[in-house]
Amino acid sequence: MENENASRLRRLRKRMVAADLDALYVGARPNIRYLSGFTGSAGHLLVEHSQVTLFTDSRYTVQAAEQTSGVEVSVGKRDSFRDFLASLKERKIGALGYERNRLSLAAFEGLEEARGRRKLCAQTDLVEELRVVKSEAEIDAIRRSVDLNSEALERVLRAVRPTWTENRTAGELEYWMRRLGAAGSSFETIVAAGAHSALPHATPRNERLGKNRFVLIDQGADLDGYASDMTRVVSFGDPGTEARKIHAAVLNALEAAVATVRAGVSTRTVDQAARKSLAKEGLESRFTHSIGHGVGLEIHEPPFFRRGSDQALRLKAGMVITVEPGVYLPGIGGVRIEDILVVRAKGYERLTKTSPKLRIL
Amino acid sequence: MENENASRLRRLRKRMVAADLDALYVGARPNIRYLSGFTGSAGHLLVEHSQVTLFTDSRYTVQAAEQTSGVEVSVGKRDSFRDFLASLKERKIGALGYERNRLSLAAFEGLEEARGRRKLCAQTDLVEELRVVKSEAEIDAIRRSVDLNSEALERVLRAVRPTWTENRTAGELEYWMRRLGAAGSSFETIVAAGAHSALPHATPRNERLGKNRFVLIDQGADLDGYASDMTRVVSFGDPGTEARKIHAAVLNALEAAVATVRAGVSTRTVDQAARKSLAKEGLESRFTHSIGHGVGLEIHEPPFFRRGSDQALRLKAGMVITVEPGVYLPGIGGVRIEDILVVRAKGYERLTKTSPKLRIL
Repeated sequence: MENENASRLRRLRKRMVAADLDALYVGARPNIRYLSGFTGSAGHLLVEHSQVTLFTDSRYTVQAAEQTSGVEVSVGKRDSFRDFLASLKERKIGALGYERNRLSLAAFEGLEEARGRRKLCAQTDLVEELRVVKSEAEIDAIRRSVDLNSEALERVLRAVRPTWTENRTAGELEYWMRRLGAAGSSFETIVAAGAHSALPHATPRNERLGKNRFVLIDQGADLDGYASDMTRVVSFGDPGTEARKIHAAVLNALEAAVATVRAGVSTRTVDQAARKSLAKEGLESRFTHSIGHGVGLEIHEPPFFRRGSDQALRLKAGMVITVEPGVYLPGIGGVRIEDILVVRAKGYERLTKTSPKLRIL
Repeated sequence: MENENASRLRRLRKRMVAADLDALYVGARPNIRYLSGFTGSAGHLLVEHSQVTLFTDSRYTVQAAEQTSGVEVSVGKRDSFRDFLASLKERKIGALGYERNRLSLAAFEGLEEARGRRKLCAQTDLVEELRVVKSEAEIDAIRRSVDLNSEALERVLRAVRPTWTENRTAGELEYWMRRLGAAGSSFETIVAAGAHSALPHATPRNERLGKNRFVLIDQGADLDGYASDMTRVVSFGDPGTEARKIHAAVLNALEAAVATVRAGVSTRTVDQAARKSLAKEGLESRFTHSIGHGVGLEIHEPPFFRRGSDQALRLKAGMVITVEPGVYLPGIGGVRIEDILVVRAKGYERLTKTSPKLRIL
């Protein structure tokens, strides 16, 4: 996607003009990657109207040259942030923007010290808002990550036994992500059996999966920088009538929410569709988190589906989102089903191909 | 180690008195764990002289009650940081300390808004400096993590083939960490073959390990919150005379550095021992990073072995450190060998049991 960087910078600079900025300091890693292609862990990007400079250290000399084009690479001796601050002094920058939600206090203090007579201007999500609508090349990258993630689940489900622990099962899933070419998982894999599945953020334990009960699996891969995210519920043998009813209710909520997705629709509409569907079964109060979030270079990124009506926003074509209703019964168990969708002008494209049904092993 | 929390708080409060603090806001996760036992991802700890309060959200109600004792747990509805800020208003705190190297700019701005008439006092490493000397119970926990990490390597070396990719090999290592009971790896596993091993922070590629060349493996496990860290070099078949000479030089440097470790010795002495040893082979300039770092609840924590003589510090009994000399020849390859040691009054205890020798497979 190297040729995309120029158009991204063009769009960013328009926003910089609107915000009266001479330059923007970008320190967040996914934003640096988005604008320059550089993936190293130590990098600081200065975007001016006439040039872009990447400050990094000698570990990344070769990599920075290979991954970027049209970017001035400045390799210092030690601390690339100090090098960046020192170089500010030689530049004519009246108003310098910084990413207020990304900066550490220590980095902000460094900027303050080096500011001289220039103005420091707090910016919120300047780059993130560019990232919210994906190009087709990016959607392809996410599709590959989603497919790989699904395949990792299939490989594990072929071998898994009720005697495996949650922890081992999570390890097998992450192993298969790597085997299939991912750099690893895009977040800490969740495998939660029985009552443990009632915790939306369960950590895998050294407990067996067991029989006739829910095993909730929430997994994502990192392929070429792009994240995937999927939740499925399986069971060794029948988990019982009540459990099957709950799973069916969540599946109905998923489909009700998915059916509303298209460009122009409010995030609130998607959320409400799931809640209304669950309300029919009296389970609405058990759905304790938001219906979804954006996915891309980060596992959680805008758009966020916040519940307050004042925070609703309209979906745009090219957004990539999760839809993930859940029902959690403390002490009993939980179900969450999560797919990834691309918002299209007249509807949606569902990237997740794995069946969302309860899978009896 | 629940009973240790009280003595940790006692020591922290002494430091708070010395710093004229009525209370300390602790937001860094390993510091919260150290002081309270709580391991959840959403937590904010307020340490006052008469009480300790943990602010978290409803996902962690049960867990917070189980993991802590002597701690007031406050569970809010949504954002636990906002709950913490709101509760500040009801407390008589004249001087409130915060962790200046841990706080985000956004959190600092939140504190500023909620400060009222109280004084905000920037603190550096107040809790980290308590953590630097480990108890025997903590050393035991690290020993178990180190042993598990070594065992994961053995399991993988039994099966590994030259046709495996770096990425698959890293996946197998992390899989075995989990299989043996770890929560996962304590950092991104490095597997780097041939010339790629010349990058100290190499990312595993989808390239085969190959024959007759270095395969550098840098791996660590997270067991019960405690990290391990080990680097070894292996080769399928003889990597050649030059390569063997370089490995021997790094091994000599490791042993020279290790031999100096005991309480009272300067970090500079350890560093210099490795560099002098490498200088005999003319390789000193190829050792481009520091000789080691502390290990505990975090993979990198104080003491840090910085190279400037003004930054040297004296080792204390109970510190747990890595010693990890390396030699990197760009375009050719690199060797790093890394062990974990406990500093003892009259010497050291080497926790890493895996042989540091070049292993020909």
